[in-house]
Amino acid sequence: MSDIPRSIRITEEGPREGFQIEPGPIPTARKVEFINALAKTGLKRIQACSFVNPKRVPGWADADEVVAGIIPVPGVQFAGLWLNEQGLQRALTHKDKLYIDGKINMYPSSAFLKRNNNMTQEQYRAEVIKFVATCKKHGLPVDRGSISSAFGCNFEGDIPVSTVVKLVGDLLELAKEQELTIKELSLADTMAWGTPLAIKRVVGAVQEKYPDLKLKLHLHDTRGMGLANAFAGLEMGVDRYDAAAAGLGGCPFAKHKGAAGNVCTEDLVFMCQEMGIDTGIDLDALIAAAQMAEEIVGHPLPGTLMKGGTLQALRVKAAQNLAAAA
Amino acid sequence: MSDIPRSIRITEEGPREGFQIEPGPIPTARKVEFINALAKTGLKRIQACSFVNPKRVPGWADADEVVAGIIPVPGVQFAGLWLNEQGLQRALTHKDKLYIDGKINMYPSSAFLKRNNNMTQEQYRAEVIKFVATCKKHGLPVDRGSISSAFGCNFEGDIPVSTVVKLVGDLLELAKEQELTIKELSLADTMAWGTPLAIKRVVGAVQEKYPDLKLKLHLHDTRGMGLANAFAGLEMGVDRYDAAAAGLGGCPFAKHKGAAGNVCTEDLVFMCQEMGIDTGIDLDALIAAAQMAEEIVGHPLPGTLMKGGTLQALRVKAAQNLAAAA
Repeated sequence: MSDIPRSIRITEEGPREGFQIEPGPIPTARKVEFINALAKTGLKRIQACSFVNPKRVPGWADADEVVAGIIPVPGVQFAGLWLNEQGLQRALTHKDKLYIDGKINMYPSSAFLKRNNNMTQEQYRAEVIKFVATCKKHGLPVDRGSISSAFGCNFEGDIPVSTVVKLVGDLLELAKEQELTIKELSLADTMAWGTPLAIKRVVGAVQEKYPDLKLKLHLHDTRGMGLANAFAGLEMGVDRYDAAAAGLGGCPFAKHKGAAGNVCTEDLVFMCQEMGIDTGIDLDALIAAAQMAEEIVGHPLPGTLMKGGTLQALRVKAAQNLAAAA
Repeated sequence: MSDIPRSIRITEEGPREGFQIEPGPIPTARKVEFINALAKTGLKRIQACSFVNPKRVPGWADADEVVAGIIPVPGVQFAGLWLNEQGLQRALTHKDKLYIDGKINMYPSSAFLKRNNNMTQEQYRAEVIKFVATCKKHGLPVDRGSISSAFGCNFEGDIPVSTVVKLVGDLLELAKEQELTIKELSLADTMAWGTPLAIKRVVGAVQEKYPDLKLKLHLHDTRGMGLANAFAGLEMGVDRYDAAAAGLGGCPFAKHKGAAGNVCTEDLVFMCQEMGIDTGIDLDALIAAAQMAEEIVGHPLPGTLMKGGTLQALRVKAAQNLAAAA
């Protein structure tokens, strides 16, 4: 238990993931309202939008308008996702409001690369080098890395721990060749294959080989393992997590089978706070934002705490009752 | 990690808890269908019904008819809850089909006892002795104990670990006085105050003082901590858990705020199986039963795996694809 960090840092992924997956058109003003509410909870990093092809992701066709509505909060970093030159150009028009950087992402699954990008690992590596060049051309920092599907992949099956460790090495080597320093490496359970023991095994193996590397966990909750996996990460000393308010991006309905939302932010914050781990987040404000998200999307979202309630009010009432009875 | 058990035993609580909390009248035949489906999954202990006051719990007014419909399965123990002499009399008419025993339950929270039963701890102790006498009169085994709200209580607030350890001692002493042997002690997070670290602290303290006592965890998922708490229990070597298929007993709707379902059986089984812990359960059959439960109650239930799906089919497909590509 001694490895459990004193504080953690959460990157909020709810707006980007959530509004991408929701079928109904959501008014731009409501997206803005939600993001601005999140920015007042103590969250310091918010993935606010996505500059992707509006034909493929209609939910983010209004990314420019959303950014226009964001009210800057000192100390809060808003980010926008981009995947290609076109997206980057859109993102760059919001340089004043958004933190725009590049991240080196690698895939342990060659089967996924083949299927999704029709590339070999070598070809993909060349693409990453082109990507880095684009970032450099625009003066964007590239100091984050990530390993997708580090705990298993629908196209490759189980991923050996040694494959992940080797890929982390490849990523760090490529970064070094490109004169970049990776300050944070995310291990992503993209397709929700992870269990707490798998988290411990993979994190432990990467830590052993690269003890100075700052690790982050990106945990999808598709099979309900999200918080248990986060706890396993905490026990390994991992102090950075992605999460989504209300569990946005996932959906409790069977018709959205396998919708792969991130672990729910307020559930994670509650677990941490109750275990004495500082998150810097106002839990009541975050729950209010999560409830707003549910109202905005118009159907129940996976988050549990916003239905069950926190313990703080119960503690106060219990103390009052005990005092009155004494 | 070395304390993680090789196998665990799950007591299924779904039917009793689920049909108690559901508002709509559910046809008796469907309850029976669900229970009989559960009995074919490999689950060995099923809390099948509740002999409580039909005026207070209309959902179990048909307990006798439900038991009549249960098809015995060799090796599967069906149980019925009873809380008073009247309930016991009803339960005893089903002695041929149901396993009927007594359990000594104690409350660390004097505030709860006062509020709920209008009793002091001393008065409650006298009630327990009367209860044991009733069990003895009817020849029922009394070899199980439980500590309610062992991790916190809405009326008392946080419960010191020392209070729980002392209460376990009181319970064992009372049992000894009554010439009973407690074979299993359940630590119940009745009001869902627990976190993984709290589970470790309480379980660890009880284990240290009573190393030979077989512990069980009863974990409510009201605040989303259920599986993380179960993982903490596994890490402490606990190999007995209560759980509810589909997360029955809870409800993902805000209008049922704080509905306190048990940790979801199939999510727990998935986590264990993927970590190499034997449960003896056919996960696909269990998921089918959980989906039946959702259909029976007519609204989504909290279980996650039944929406996300298992990994086994994905593994097979991935292996086929890899073989075809080779």
